[in-house]
Amino acid sequence: MSAEERLRELDVVLPEPPASAGLYAPLVQTGALLFVSGQVPMRDGQILRHGRCGESITIEEGAALARQCALQALALVRQHLGSLDGVARAVRLGGYVASAPMFTEHPKVINGASQLLLDVFGEAGRHARIAIGVAELPFGVPVEVEFVFEVRA
Amino acid sequence: MSAEERLRELDVVLPEPPASAGLYAPLVQTGALLFVSGQVPMRDGQILRHGRCGESITIEEGAALARQCALQALALVRQHLGSLDGVARAVRLGGYVASAPMFTEHPKVINGASQLLLDVFGEAGRHARIAIGVAELPFGVPVEVEFVFEVRA
Amino acid sequence: MSAEERLRELDVVLPEPPASAGLYAPLVQTGALLFVSGQVPMRDGQILRHGRCGESITIEEGAALARQCALQALALVRQHLGSLDGVARAVRLGGYVASAPMFTEHPKVINGASQLLLDVFGEAGRHARIAIGVAELPFGVPVEVEFVFEVRA
Repeated sequence: MSAEERLRELDVVLPEPPASAGLYAPLVQTGALLFVSGQVPMRDGQILRHGRCGESITIEEGAALARQCALQALALVRQHLGSLDGVARAVRLGGYVASAPMFTEHPKVINGASQLLLDVFGEAGRHARIAIGVAELPFGVPVEVEFVFEVRA
Repeated sequence: MSAEERLRELDVVLPEPPASAGLYAPLVQTGALLFVSGQVPMRDGQILRHGRCGESITIEEGAALARQCALQALALVRQHLGSLDGVARAVRLGGYVASAPMFTEHPKVINGASQLLLDVFGEAGRHARIAIGVAELPFGVPVEVEFVFEVRA
Repeated sequence: MSAEERLRELDVVLPEPPASAGLYAPLVQTGALLFVSGQVPMRDGQILRHGRCGESITIEEGAALARQCALQALALVRQHLGSLDGVARAVRLGGYVASAPMFTEHPKVINGASQLLLDVFGEAGRHARIAIGVAELPFGVPVEVEFVFEVRA
C-alpha cells in the first residue's frame, strides 16, 4: 500500500500546511533530503495547547500533540512533493519536550509522532531519533518536533 | 546580486573565523552539505555576553547575539569555500536559547540569525529551523546556533 | 592505520549494539549519510547511570558516559556496515547534557565522545558539534549523544 492509501485507510485528513512564521521556511529540500522546520501543535492558525509535560500535560496528551506535529509535517511534505508517495523514507526526527522537573518520559511523548510515521509509511517510516527534555519552548507549547525525510529519486 | 556583493552593500565585515575549540571541527563538508558547529557569540576570542534571555538579556540583545553567531558561521563558510558565493542555499538552523523560566520568545531571538541569512543570501537564505529554550549553554552564553548550508555543484 | 586496527590498538571492545527501543531505528542510512539515534549510556540493556552533571555526576563521569554513547554508536555503525572501515568520516555530533543550574561545562562532558571518534578515526573523526545543557533527559540519564557519519563510496 502506498503512503496516501494508508492515510486514507487510517481515515486521517491532514491539516492545512502551517504558513511560514516569517523569517524561515517551513520546509527546505537539499538534494534528496527534506528538512522540515520544528513543528509546534497548531489548529486553525492557533497554538493548540500550552503547558509542560509532567505538570498540566499528561504523557497521553503530549503524545497526541506530537502526533499533531507529525501531521503538520506530512501536510508540508505533501504540499512540497504533491503526494506523500514521493517520500522514500523518514530519516530523522528531533523531539523536544517542555518538561516539568523530574519528568523523564520524553520517549513516550515523542512516540506519538513516531507511531504516525510508521502507520503512514510502514517500515520506511522508521527513523533515527532524539527525544530530549527542554526548559521552555516557543509560545509555551509542550512539544516541538522537527523532521528529515528522503525523497524518491 | 551575489552574497559577497550584498555583504558589502550591508557594510558588514565578517569577524575572524573562530578557531576550533579543540576536539571538533568548526565546519565539516559532506557531499554538498556544510555542517557548521554550534556557534556561541565571541569577540576577539572572548565570550561576548553571559546570561539568560528573560533575565539579564533582553530579546533585542539576544537577537543581536544570534546575529553574531551567524556572522561567525559565514566567516567559517567563507574560509572553507573561499567565497560566500559558493553557497547554494541555507538549509537548516538550530537555535538554542538559554532561557529564564517562562521565557518563550525564542523565535524572536533566533530571528537575529535568520534575518542575517536572508539579508546576505536573499531567498536562498531561507532555511528550515528549530528554536528551543534550554537550561544552560556552554560558558553561560545566552544563545548558541548551528547551521547547515548547501554548496553549489 | 584503519579504524578497526586503531580500535584493536586501543584495546577497545565495542558493546553489543543497543536494540531498538521500538518505534524508531537505532540507525538510518540515506545516501552516503548514517544518522545514529540519540544514544543514552547503557550496559547489558540497563541504564548505566542516572543524575545530572553538576549535581550527582562529575565532569569526568559525564565524559566517560559520553564516551560510552560513542562506543554504542560505533557498535551500531559496525553492525550496519560490517566494519568501521566503511566510514569515510564523522560529520556531526549532537551532545545533550542534563545539567544542574549553573553547570556550563557541557563541552568537557561531550569531549568524552569526541575524543573517542578522534582516537578511532584520526582526523576523519573530527566532526561538527553542538553541546547544550538540557533540563531532563529520557530515563533520567546524564547525557545523550546523536551522530551523523559519512560512509565510503
